[in-house]
Amino acid sequence: MSPVTDTSSLDGLRDRLLRFVADRQWEPYLTPKNLAMALAGEVGELLAELQWLTPEESVAVVTADPAAAARIRSELADVTNYLVHLAASLDVDLVANAHHKLDEVEVRYPPV
Amino acid sequence: MSPVTDTSSLDGLRDRLLRFVADRQWEPYLTPKNLAMALAGEVGELLAELQWLTPEESVAVVTADPAAAARIRSELADVTNYLVHLAASLDVDLVANAHHKLDEVEVRYPPV
Amino acid sequence: MSPVTDTSSLDGLRDRLLRFVADRQWEPYLTPKNLAMALAGEVGELLAELQWLTPEESVAVVTADPAAAARIRSELADVTNYLVHLAASLDVDLVANAHHKLDEVEVRYPPV
Amino acid sequence: MSPVTDTSSLDGLRDRLLRFVADRQWEPYLTPKNLAMALAGEVGELLAELQWLTPEESVAVVTADPAAAARIRSELADVTNYLVHLAASLDVDLVANAHHKLDEVEVRYPPV
Repeated sequence: MSPVTDTSSLDGLRDRLLRFVADRQWEPYLTPKNLAMALAGEVGELLAELQWLTPEESVAVVTADPAAAARIRSELADVTNYLVHLAASLDVDLVANAHHKLDEVEVRYPPV
Repeated sequence: MSPVTDTSSLDGLRDRLLRFVADRQWEPYLTPKNLAMALAGEVGELLAELQWLTPEESVAVVTADPAAAARIRSELADVTNYLVHLAASLDVDLVANAHHKLDEVEVRYPPV
Repeated sequence: MSPVTDTSSLDGLRDRLLRFVADRQWEPYLTPKNLAMALAGEVGELLAELQWLTPEESVAVVTADPAAAARIRSELADVTNYLVHLAASLDVDLVANAHHKLDEVEVRYPPV
Repeated sequence: MSPVTDTSSLDGLRDRLLRFVADRQWEPYLTPKNLAMALAGEVGELLAELQWLTPEESVAVVTADPAAAARIRSELADVTNYLVHLAASLDVDLVANAHHKLDEVEVRYPPV
């Protein structure tokens, strides 16, 4: 049971993840290099759920195939957790960092 | 210039991304299948930044190599943005979904 | 039982894979896009086998951990088979294509 | 100029790659862990070439878009070279290993 009080933000998720890892003494394994590999491994499992679907079928999968949708949500959770952990290990605020990049991308690709 | 008012949460980031895409009429391309591929492609670029470093060097990279750190932050932003977009396309709340998975993982791996 | 006569070359492997797929009527699924996703998914499983090892441990894994080595060989096989299939779908001779790229890379990075 | 005599087999490609690396004194970097990351990074670049195409467009890309086809061949070469290098670092014969796995897969999925 984790005493998480903030379950709506990435900061609350990050704090829970850091406590989860500390409670299991896993910190020595969780370098940025290793976490990036783990992130890529989970993204690979996500791809496997979508690889034989057409793009149109992938749009409909949430409503058309509840079992596949549950597996996809589980993989998305693993991806999210490793990404949040990786960002913490690199001292990056994911949301601010993403907005900063979007500032550049919006200039590079003007609206039609 | 985007009229984003909430720059601290994933919801605000998602809203900005959806508007960014709508303004460019890119929606037809952004199926879950295609977005998962784009996410994996960006994770690949992140791996490339860390592949020749030792785990110890990857821990120190943020302070030891500002140019590499900037590239890593840029890749993290691309990964974040595609993940947020993918979750939106699947109607998944990333933070709630990640907590739900952690509820299971905490039981599966008890603390030491 | 496959009547493969050439088990030493990539061409023989490719021919066996194409027959395997034809015998199961899976061709409609095996587009370059889908095969690239499947390849990436299998590479993700390979990463998962190596993610918590140090680089030194990864060098020793073949002799130090026979069970892990067997899993790694199994993932390498999946990666190889999807790569050979993908190349066939794009009408690319993998070995000739790799030598062609090495001709360029050898010029770009002169020996020390 | 490399004195490669066998340009038709994976063994010849592997020998050229090992000599290429030795000539540049890069061996210390080329552990299985690092090579798996590099392989995944190149697969990510391959995905990026196919991510916005429909499956049907990906089938036609070789003839319909020569510039994209050249980029795809270049990425396929990078993937091949890292896979061959990784297999060498793990003392795995890629073709024999792939046939061994196919022996199992053919039993698991009987023909229709």
